[in-house]
Amino acid sequence: MYRIGFDIGGTNIAAGLVDEKGTIVSRFTLPFEKEAYRGALAEKLAGMVKAIIANSGIKAEEVASVGLAVPGSIDPKAEVVLDAYNLDLHDVPLRAEVQAELPEYPVLLINDADAAAVAELYGGAFSAAKTAVLLTLGTGVGGGVIIGGRLWRGGMGHGVELGHMALDISGRMCTCGVRGCIEANCAATSLITAAREALASGERGLLYERCGGDPMRINAKTVVDAARENDPAASHIFRDYVNALSSAVVSVIHLLDPEVIAIGGGVSLAGDFLFAPLREKVREKCFFDTFARIEPARYGNDAGILGAAMLGATEI
Amino acid sequence: MYRIGFDIGGTNIAAGLVDEKGTIVSRFTLPFEKEAYRGALAEKLAGMVKAIIANSGIKAEEVASVGLAVPGSIDPKAEVVLDAYNLDLHDVPLRAEVQAELPEYPVLLINDADAAAVAELYGGAFSAAKTAVLLTLGTGVGGGVIIGGRLWRGGMGHGVELGHMALDISGRMCTCGVRGCIEANCAATSLITAAREALASGERGLLYERCGGDPMRINAKTVVDAARENDPAASHIFRDYVNALSSAVVSVIHLLDPEVIAIGGGVSLAGDFLFAPLREKVREKCFFDTFARIEPARYGNDAGILGAAMLGATEI
Repeated sequence: MYRIGFDIGGTNIAAGLVDEKGTIVSRFTLPFEKEAYRGALAEKLAGMVKAIIANSGIKAEEVASVGLAVPGSIDPKAEVVLDAYNLDLHDVPLRAEVQAELPEYPVLLINDADAAAVAELYGGAFSAAKTAVLLTLGTGVGGGVIIGGRLWRGGMGHGVELGHMALDISGRMCTCGVRGCIEANCAATSLITAAREALASGERGLLYERCGGDPMRINAKTVVDAARENDPAASHIFRDYVNALSSAVVSVIHLLDPEVIAIGGGVSLAGDFLFAPLREKVREKCFFDTFARIEPARYGNDAGILGAAMLGATEI
Repeated sequence: MYRIGFDIGGTNIAAGLVDEKGTIVSRFTLPFEKEAYRGALAEKLAGMVKAIIANSGIKAEEVASVGLAVPGSIDPKAEVVLDAYNLDLHDVPLRAEVQAELPEYPVLLINDADAAAVAELYGGAFSAAKTAVLLTLGTGVGGGVIIGGRLWRGGMGHGVELGHMALDISGRMCTCGVRGCIEANCAATSLITAAREALASGERGLLYERCGGDPMRINAKTVVDAARENDPAASHIFRDYVNALSSAVVSVIHLLDPEVIAIGGGVSLAGDFLFAPLREKVREKCFFDTFARIEPARYGNDAGILGAAMLGATEI
């Protein structure tokens, strides 16, 4: 049997045919056209399902489920896309719409951050784990929670907002308007903000050199690379970042005590330069003698497709 | 059927006979004698079980389980008291010791904060809830987590340390040595610390008056009462406290989305003066349109007995 997963993004709709082991065996991508798809998205997705089946040489009845990952909030019953700003979808009962087009398959809806957490269960960082947490460090901080080997959709169905747990309530304002969220301190953006502040206050080391004096050219990799080369300002910024991230990880450990915490997103590409000091800091702060393995997330761009597809394996 | 619960504290051992509905129908208390009980605690507890049965006029076979709540850490298998400083118990396999004395009953071991959370399931704040969190605001901040209608012992069995989730990593040092834990900002002690700091910096309002100029006589109630009377310094301290507590509550909501959050401990006795602004602040910060009911914990001194007793109903 196979499953089909969609990762519906603001630029592209990526679909994949996934086998029982969680391997994506074929793919199909279309540009996402906001205007053209208004009111016709479900029909488009159903068309893609048929195209994938035809192109892959499998039989229609070999597909066990169809999953839809969307970058936005969904309702507690996982029926309606409440707000997906990048897709310009608001209060759209997408699951039922696609279900109506594809009556032969169970259709499931999931948030893309949650999909990424489900994906890690299949040959990724969460293999064999029952309790696990994914933190994705990008423009914002997202993630998903696995409890009992299944996606945790929240006790009331609202999902999770890991990036908006409190971390530093005397510190930086978050884009959400609340002071001190994890996102305000652990997003890739926080590295950039701190570097720009350093430049603004006269810092003229590697950070300055690498951006040619233009703070708008700073990105997270600039900071990480300069810290690797022991630039004092960048090292200081990176140390503060790791300290904040370790506290975020400890919060999760002290509440859930998961077996694994996976870190994804751009910042995780720093590899051991991030993970070694992160694990050490968590060890300093954690009350437990043993605690979660802290590992890079395995799936990046494929996480949405894979998680949406495999959701059917954990939920049905 | 009945269950027997023990709340083993540094001063007293309190035992109770609990009926199926979670009502304590008879009690028995003995002073806890550290020296005399060294190596003889299990025997003492077994003696109390027999005395309770004899005094209550029930038959020995009407007791379904015996639970032991201890103020300290226990191992992931819930067999050994790792460290209970108030009892001077370290690495004591208390469950097996008591089990050997009482082979006729299942004997269970639980941390006292976890016991308090289990207790709320029985006619308390967690009645009918499947996902719920108790925060106890006292000298420290403790609490317990209910997931799926049962005590959450952590994904790896380490339990939870809600008081040592991060809240304000640029802020106050916690007694645990880490900066900015929930406990450093939300314990009753934080109200006292803030009031003493105000006095030290020259504050001469109600706080000064009520303690007769002696900062050591300030307690949490002094601060709450002065804030109720609109004393400016006390109001400021209490507002900061509620703000910090609301962020702690939001952290829990954004990770677990529980149906209920119960607040216990001395500070919760402030009643609506605490709960009304707390709920308002949580509403401001929370991403979800609807979220956990935030309510006073029902059980205070009885929580240990009741939770230890009823653990048998949820775990066996």
